[in-house]
Amino acid sequence: MIRIRLTLSYDGTDFCGWQKQGPNVAPEHKPSVQQTLEEALSKLFNEPISVNGSGRTDAGVHAVGQVCDFSLSRENKLPKDFCWAIRSFLPSSMVVKKAFVAPEEFHSLHSATHKTYCYWIWNRPTPTALLSRYSHWIRHPLDLEHLNRQTQFLIGEHDFKSFQSAGTPITDTVRTIQSAGWQLKKNGLVQFRVTGDGFLKQMVRNIVGTQLDLAMKSQDPEIIENIVNFKDRRKAGPTAPGQGLFLWRVYYPQALDNKCRRI
Amino acid sequence: MIRIRLTLSYDGTDFCGWQKQGPNVAPEHKPSVQQTLEEALSKLFNEPISVNGSGRTDAGVHAVGQVCDFSLSRENKLPKDFCWAIRSFLPSSMVVKKAFVAPEEFHSLHSATHKTYCYWIWNRPTPTALLSRYSHWIRHPLDLEHLNRQTQFLIGEHDFKSFQSAGTPITDTVRTIQSAGWQLKKNGLVQFRVTGDGFLKQMVRNIVGTQLDLAMKSQDPEIIENIVNFKDRRKAGPTAPGQGLFLWRVYYPQALDNKCRRI
Repeated sequence: MIRIRLTLSYDGTDFCGWQKQGPNVAPEHKPSVQQTLEEALSKLFNEPISVNGSGRTDAGVHAVGQVCDFSLSRENKLPKDFCWAIRSFLPSSMVVKKAFVAPEEFHSLHSATHKTYCYWIWNRPTPTALLSRYSHWIRHPLDLEHLNRQTQFLIGEHDFKSFQSAGTPITDTVRTIQSAGWQLKKNGLVQFRVTGDGFLKQMVRNIVGTQLDLAMKSQDPEIIENIVNFKDRRKAGPTAPGQGLFLWRVYYPQALDNKCRRI
Repeated sequence: MIRIRLTLSYDGTDFCGWQKQGPNVAPEHKPSVQQTLEEALSKLFNEPISVNGSGRTDAGVHAVGQVCDFSLSRENKLPKDFCWAIRSFLPSSMVVKKAFVAPEEFHSLHSATHKTYCYWIWNRPTPTALLSRYSHWIRHPLDLEHLNRQTQFLIGEHDFKSFQSAGTPITDTVRTIQSAGWQLKKNGLVQFRVTGDGFLKQMVRNIVGTQLDLAMKSQDPEIIENIVNFKDRRKAGPTAPGQGLFLWRVYYPQALDNKCRRI
């Protein structure tokens, strides 16, 4: 058996999220990213393939650089140009950008050290037709300075329990945010970019929803520190919609990256 | 009666093109932009509305700044904030960006003096999941210098008959291109931008398809001059796919713009 590592990009609009659904799902339900990829790989290699992801993305959430891995029975089954060969089995909304033969110990989820997410907001009086799938529309002008002052209270190691959505068995809710900030990416498009060692369920969307809520109500930026300290989801703001979120990049230890061989 | 002028943006993926279809179209057919807009306006104003566009866009072609106009029975039917009011009657893939009360003589098609189109090409070894709706993928690196040398032969007044697709009654095929050029817009994304006083049926897509064909075969850039001179569609290259094309902006005489009042 050999281990293969993939860098994957997808438009989340057409999927019900990363996670494979059970057999009792109604047929009109959108497919999952995991299931679509597993079916494509199983066809390409003519053997059943199971894929591990670096983490689950929710319905509507996009990925620029999701990482996943799978085991293949024999190395000589690999086509000459993997990314090209898998193409014809995937919909146009999903692309394998890079592929590697990885060391046996590589695991997309457990080996990851950091992740970067971006959240896009369309901040104009009228909505956008061309970025509507990829952004959350806020009509009133955002105060980026206010948002960045709030963000300062989130950087570093904190218990982010207030920003964890219900429905997860995780009890250790301490995480470290290395960097985070808001900026005007281009005319009308505001980006929140955050890098951390791990993220709780819907943590980025809950942070974004809470920050926007405080900024639009012109509340004191320090209030977000109180919200963190409460360790209570009910004290934080709403969950920002999935379509604005992108899993941008997943990081692994340099030593592990060095053992991966591009195919 | 008063005349209303709109600036419209749409994601062409979800439409069969600008032009309203006849009554015998199969029900699974995608709606047209014109029909979708007319239905929304007719509901908003509770009277039948017919819309004139600055030109037809084909199936899959997008618009950043399409312009259209219509007549309304009475000015006092206008809502306080038109762009906001029409929103709820339109799908998220279509947005009215600006609205004006225009002088009686304003006509989106006949008053237009120039138009700008952009064409996007994803120029990377692997395709793009997130821009797949908005670009044409070319795997092999494009030579932008070669493309721009070709473009020099197209700027100015020429008979563009070689770049006019069949199925149009137009016989005067002389048009003037004011400016045109290829550039790397960002990593992997190549843009062709062209401004002219008018464009024949599929002229931009035929120019793009022909230029790409010559560049990828490393043919002499001057060959495009011969293709123009032949005045024969069969001498030019293929039609580039619709999903890479954007109607970017439509220009009107300054005197007419000055008579339009933003609503």
